[in-house]
Amino acid sequence: MTRPSPGLPAEFGLIARHFRPLAGPGALDLLDDAALLQPPPGRELVFTADVMVAGVHFLPNDPADTVGAKLLRVNLSDLAAMGAAPLAYLMTVSAPRDTGDAWFAAFAAGLARDQAWFGVTLLGGDTTATPGPMTLSLTAIGHVAPGAALRRRGAAAGDEVWVTGTVGDGALGLLALRGQVSDPDGWLAGRYRLPQPRLGLALHGIVSACMDVSDGLVQDLGHLCRAAGLGAVIEAARVPRSPAARAAGEAWLKTCLTGGDDYELLMAVPPQHADALLAMAAAQGCGATRIGRFEAGEEVRVLDGAGAVVNLNRQGWSHF
Amino acid sequence: MTRPSPGLPAEFGLIARHFRPLAGPGALDLLDDAALLQPPPGRELVFTADVMVAGVHFLPNDPADTVGAKLLRVNLSDLAAMGAAPLAYLMTVSAPRDTGDAWFAAFAAGLARDQAWFGVTLLGGDTTATPGPMTLSLTAIGHVAPGAALRRRGAAAGDEVWVTGTVGDGALGLLALRGQVSDPDGWLAGRYRLPQPRLGLALHGIVSACMDVSDGLVQDLGHLCRAAGLGAVIEAARVPRSPAARAAGEAWLKTCLTGGDDYELLMAVPPQHADALLAMAAAQGCGATRIGRFEAGEEVRVLDGAGAVVNLNRQGWSHF
Repeated sequence: MTRPSPGLPAEFGLIARHFRPLAGPGALDLLDDAALLQPPPGRELVFTADVMVAGVHFLPNDPADTVGAKLLRVNLSDLAAMGAAPLAYLMTVSAPRDTGDAWFAAFAAGLARDQAWFGVTLLGGDTTATPGPMTLSLTAIGHVAPGAALRRRGAAAGDEVWVTGTVGDGALGLLALRGQVSDPDGWLAGRYRLPQPRLGLALHGIVSACMDVSDGLVQDLGHLCRAAGLGAVIEAARVPRSPAARAAGEAWLKTCLTGGDDYELLMAVPPQHADALLAMAAAQGCGATRIGRFEAGEEVRVLDGAGAVVNLNRQGWSHF
Repeated sequence: MTRPSPGLPAEFGLIARHFRPLAGPGALDLLDDAALLQPPPGRELVFTADVMVAGVHFLPNDPADTVGAKLLRVNLSDLAAMGAAPLAYLMTVSAPRDTGDAWFAAFAAGLARDQAWFGVTLLGGDTTATPGPMTLSLTAIGHVAPGAALRRRGAAAGDEVWVTGTVGDGALGLLALRGQVSDPDGWLAGRYRLPQPRLGLALHGIVSACMDVSDGLVQDLGHLCRAAGLGAVIEAARVPRSPAARAAGEAWLKTCLTGGDDYELLMAVPPQHADALLAMAAAQGCGATRIGRFEAGEEVRVLDGAGAVVNLNRQGWSHF
C-alpha cells in the first residue's frame, strides 16, 4: 500500500502521505504490526524517549517543521549525552482533530531534513486523535561500543565543569517569542526551536561524567553532583553566552543559568583532558568552555565576579 | 538517587516513587539520559509503539492498574503478531496536573504485575504534565530469530482465515461500561480493560500471514487481503464469540465483527497446517477457530447462515 487506498479511514491516508516516506530499513513500510532491526554487531544499544506537549514544550504556533525537528533533536541530544551514535526512531502522534494536512506535511518535512542530516530513519509508531493539545512522543535508538557509554555518575573532586556551545539561548528564545526579550535577528528563537544535539564528539576516555542540559544549567549540574556525592562551584562570568544572549542584557543572566532547553553537553573533565576536549569541540564547531570545578560538598554554588554567591530563586525547570 | 531528594521538583519524586521500581537491567535506575541494552546475540529486534489517550482509547475512570496493564498489553500484542518474544519497554506519560499520587501508584502496580507475568522491564521514558487528557505512549522491544518474523503479507488463495480466542468482547465491554450492553459478571468489561496478548505461539512456518485484531475483524482482515492482493470470505456464524458476547444477543453480532480492542491474532493458514495451529493454541489455552478462507478478489465478504452477504455499514475503528 504505497498510496492512500480509497475507503480506508483517514488515519491510514495520513500515515501513507506523510510518514511512510520517512520509513527506513526494517520499518516494513509501516505496514506491519511492528518493525525489525538487525542490531549493529558488537555494539550496545542505547534508548531514550521524550514527549513534547503543545503549550508546554513548544508553542502551539511554532512552525510544524521545527516542531518535528525539535522532537527528534531533543532525543538525539540524549543519545549524544551517552556518547551514542543515532540509528533510528519510533514516534507517536496524538493530534487535535482539526489539525490540517499542511501541518502534517510540514512536520514530516522537518523530520525528513533532520533524518538526512543526522543519519536516522523512522522505524514505526502510532497516530491518533486527541481532544487535548498536540502530544508527540519519540523513542530514539542509538548504539555505542560496549562499556563506552557516558554516564551522569563518575565526576571526581577536582574535575572541571565544562559545557559545549552557549547556555541560555533556549530560555531567552522562548521569552523572545513571547515578546519579553529583544531578539532582532531571531537567533534566540531559532535556538529555542531548533536545538543542536552535540553528536559526534568522541568523549569516552575524556570526560568522567556527562549529561545534556535540558532543565537548566544549575539544576542539571546538581544531577551530576548528586550522582557523584559531590558539590560544584561555577563562575557566572565564565558561563558561555551567545552574542544575542549578552545583547539581551545582564538582567537575564540568572535566566541563562537556570532556564531550560539548552541541549548542550555538561561534562566533568579531569584537568589533563581539557586540551583534548577543546580540540574536539573546536573540530565539531560547537566549542566548549570551562565554567567551574567539582569539589567536596553537596550543593552547586554560583559565584559572581567578586567571588560572592549568586542567589538563584529557582534552579531550573520541571515539566510536572 | 534511590529516594526523592528534598528540593527536587515533583517530576523527579514521582519517577523515584513509582517508576524506578519498574526499571530493569540497562535502565540505569532511570538516572541517566538514556538506557543501555545488550541485544540478545543472533536475534533480530522487533519494535512497536502505541499511544493511548484518556477518553479515546480508555475510559477516564478505568482503574489505573488496568490502564497501565492495557498500555503494555496492546504493545505486547503487536510483538505477538510478529512472532516476537518481549524484552523491555520505554514509556512516556503526559498527565493532567491534578493526577493524584494514588493514580500513579496503581498505574505502576498494574505494570509491575504484568512485567512479572510477561517477563519485561522498564528501560526508560519521560513524564510530563499536560493541560489535556492523560496521554500514554509505550515503545515495546522484542526479539525473534532472524527471518522468522511473521508478516501481514504472505496469504495465498486457498489459505484459511483463523483467529485466536474470541472476537467482539472488547467492543462489547466498552459498550457495557457505558451501560449499553448487559454484562452481569463483568467478563466483557474485563476483556476491554485487560486484553490478552497471544504471546508464546510458535507460528513461524505454520501461518503464512499474521496480525493482531485491534481495529475490528473485518477491517483488519482487509489489511491481510490488500497485503496479498486477495479477497476473503468469512462465515459470520463461525466467528468465535464468548458466552458473554453471545448472551448479549444476536443484535450485537455486527458489533463483534467490526468493533475494536480484541487483540486476538488473525492468521492466514495453509490447510495442511491447521492441525498444528489448533494443537498449539489449545496448549496455550486460547484456542483458535477457522472462520473463512482467502480467495481471488479484493474485498472481504461476510456471509450469514444462508450464504447471503451480510451488509456492514462500517468495517472497523479508526482513532483519527
